Amino acid sequence: MQFPPLTLKKNAERRIRAGHLWIYSNEVDIAKTPLAAFEPGTQASVQASNGKAYGVAFVNPHALICGRLVTRDAGQGMTPQLLARRMSAALSLRESVYDRPFYRLVFGDGDGLSGLVIDRFGDICVVQISTAGMELMREQIIEAVHKLLSPGVIVLKNDGKMREIEGLPSYVEVVHGTLAASMLVEENGVPFQAPAEGGQKTGWFYDHRQNRQRLQTYARGKRVLDVFSYVGGWGVQAGVAGASQVTFLDSSAAALEYAAENARNNGLDNAEYLQADAFEALKKLAEEKAERYDLIILDPPALIPRKRDIPQGEAAYARLNELALRLLDKDGMLMSASCSMHLGADRLRDVVRASGRKVDRFVQLLEQGHQSADHPIVPAIPETEYLKALWCRSLSGFY
Amino acid sequence: MQFPPLTLKKNAERRIRAGHLWIYSNEVDIAKTPLAAFEPGTQASVQASNGKAYGVAFVNPHALICGRLVTRDAGQGMTPQLLARRMSAALSLRESVYDRPFYRLVFGDGDGLSGLVIDRFGDICVVQISTAGMELMREQIIEAVHKLLSPGVIVLKNDGKMREIEGLPSYVEVVHGTLAASMLVEENGVPFQAPAEGGQKTGWFYDHRQNRQRLQTYARGKRVLDVFSYVGGWGVQAGVAGASQVTFLDSSAAALEYAAENARNNGLDNAEYLQADAFEALKKLAEEKAERYDLIILDPPALIPRKRDIPQGEAAYARLNELALRLLDKDGMLMSASCSMHLGADRLRDVVRASGRKVDRFVQLLEQGHQSADHPIVPAIPETEYLKALWCRSLSGFY
Repeated sequence: MQFPPLTLKKNAERRIRAGHLWIYSNEVDIAKTPLAAFEPGTQASVQASNGKAYGVAFVNPHALICGRLVTRDAGQGMTPQLLARRMSAALSLRESVYDRPFYRLVFGDGDGLSGLVIDRFGDICVVQISTAGMELMREQIIEAVHKLLSPGVIVLKNDGKMREIEGLPSYVEVVHGTLAASMLVEENGVPFQAPAEGGQKTGWFYDHRQNRQRLQTYARGKRVLDVFSYVGGWGVQAGVAGASQVTFLDSSAAALEYAAENARNNGLDNAEYLQADAFEALKKLAEEKAERYDLIILDPPALIPRKRDIPQGEAAYARLNELALRLLDKDGMLMSASCSMHLGADRLRDVVRASGRKVDRFVQLLEQGHQSADHPIVPAIPETEYLKALWCRSLSGFY
Repeated sequence: MQFPPLTLKKNAERRIRAGHLWIYSNEVDIAKTPLAAFEPGTQASVQASNGKAYGVAFVNPHALICGRLVTRDAGQGMTPQLLARRMSAALSLRESVYDRPFYRLVFGDGDGLSGLVIDRFGDICVVQISTAGMELMREQIIEAVHKLLSPGVIVLKNDGKMREIEGLPSYVEVVHGTLAASMLVEENGVPFQAPAEGGQKTGWFYDHRQNRQRLQTYARGKRVLDVFSYVGGWGVQAGVAGASQVTFLDSSAAALEYAAENARNNGLDNAEYLQADAFEALKKLAEEKAERYDLIILDPPALIPRKRDIPQGEAAYARLNELALRLLDKDGMLMSASCSMHLGADRLRDVVRASGRKVDRFVQLLEQGHQSADHPIVPAIPETEYLKALWCRSLSGFY
């Protein structure tokens, strides 16, 4: 096949050669190949300034990331066949790792499918398309999902933030079957009800699956506080693992209703629900009485949405971690997580270090968790990694 | 109690305030408090240049790390009581995490016991003392082990490299009970025989326990190559997890004999043993025929012993990883580990990235493992972290 060339500035192919798959608009030689000449989603042959071809990319002239390499083979671009092959490779990984059909089936660049995310909840597939290139493949994606999985329901949750940047409309559409208000999710053998529509992102976050599995080691017999509980992913699994008491804290009444239903369905008999802002609630609890929990789960939403939010964001993480450490018993555990891509693992660790010093605890970092295997990282693309989970033991009066 | 002062230069207390526990000899104000005046192992009151006390440290004038803070309480130093309390806190962590008495009981600074390591192999305790301060506590340590665990055997394996720097003699001494040539070790429910004397370090490395547990997910039905197998920790657990074939590769005939015994005892019926230098053997295998394994375990000894060895060391890691990727089938797994403190997690990841590019594989990083929970990291002391394990899926002809 023949593709129109997209010529890069001198040396701008270096990142691509190192394994990255993105091209930024300021790396394109727009004198030779004006970006404006490309329709959003067109495929182009990526060429270095010396004319050497490096593969084929989806192009979107409106986005800062104006090119996304879909293959290093200069002779063929993205086709329905290649799409199906990549999805099939993605499925074979999940089937080898997980016994049951509950996982993120496709994780964008991590599966060689930039701009596409698919979550599988048993019979339900939730598809998120975020780039113009993938939007043009919409029907082929739906067809590939049908062929691969024959699911009962396929939903396009095309309402992510990136679509605006890519100049795409925001919509949610059930393209196959009928979607109920809530859906059944399974994680580490524990069943949950989660909102099928109106919930956060695709309704459930599988990325903490392996981190939550560690509750089986750390939650038994413990008084647990699940901060930012959402529908109870952590707290309910802590209860199933034998926690003596679980407090769910979230600002959303709807999320707490789900948490309560999930707690009931899984036989938790000592659960509390606290609808409040996490920062205010933790502060109030710490003022009332410290040392009341044995295990605190701190899994906030991304507190650093953009790079320029780093200073305030880090301060917010620090505040949360200090408050949590204050609320722990003399020998307690803190699971401190961050899903902010802009907070590196070393920075989160430093937040824990500084918080420990500030409230005079000796902190031992016992385990470091990451996003689960159904969210593969491309080593050359730091942007594909975002999740951190630090399991910390906090000792007071120890050193 | 009163301790002689050890006065730091201006601002040299900063690292201590941030949570670190070490003092370097060039940070001491030797005009005010000459290091030479301290007997190795003495306790001193650590003071900033303005006289403010920051705690009590073991001092050794002969070592670059001339001070090790034992407590931040300026009024009391290390005592038999404090030693026992710290060991008891260490034990309570292990007992909460592990069902059976096989673990690293004390991990130096990570447990607030700088210079002391204790491994527990059922009835056998292997003690390593590496600093002059701890050497002076030798009898109290033995007594504390007796009181805490009443083990059948206590061995002092005081032959580590750091002892020379600390001016301590090198010796191995069975101070209680009788030690047989080999001992029973359990890891993830799998029994092993390991050398009680003459093996590597304390005879067994518990630090990869959780990483090896992942073999239960990744080894089933796979043709596995265990490079640097030692006594078979990885390969045997792969076999128990259902690997169809396991090849153990090590340069030591004695280690391979242990591996064979462990494979037999655990019912592995398709095992091969290759006594050879890993670099040469991998090269030869790759020349003979590529794509012959589904899972390769790469767990080399520390290839970067000192900071100045970084360039050669990284090159060696790169060579190993490239060769391993070549030997994998089209869709194979590489577990790439490093126990070199001088190779950061980001550097090992970059080795994998570069190796993947070099041999044209699309590498997905699925999981990142670290040292197990019985090797706690102190967030303020980067030196307490050393182990990395990257689970990578390697796809050829994919992108």
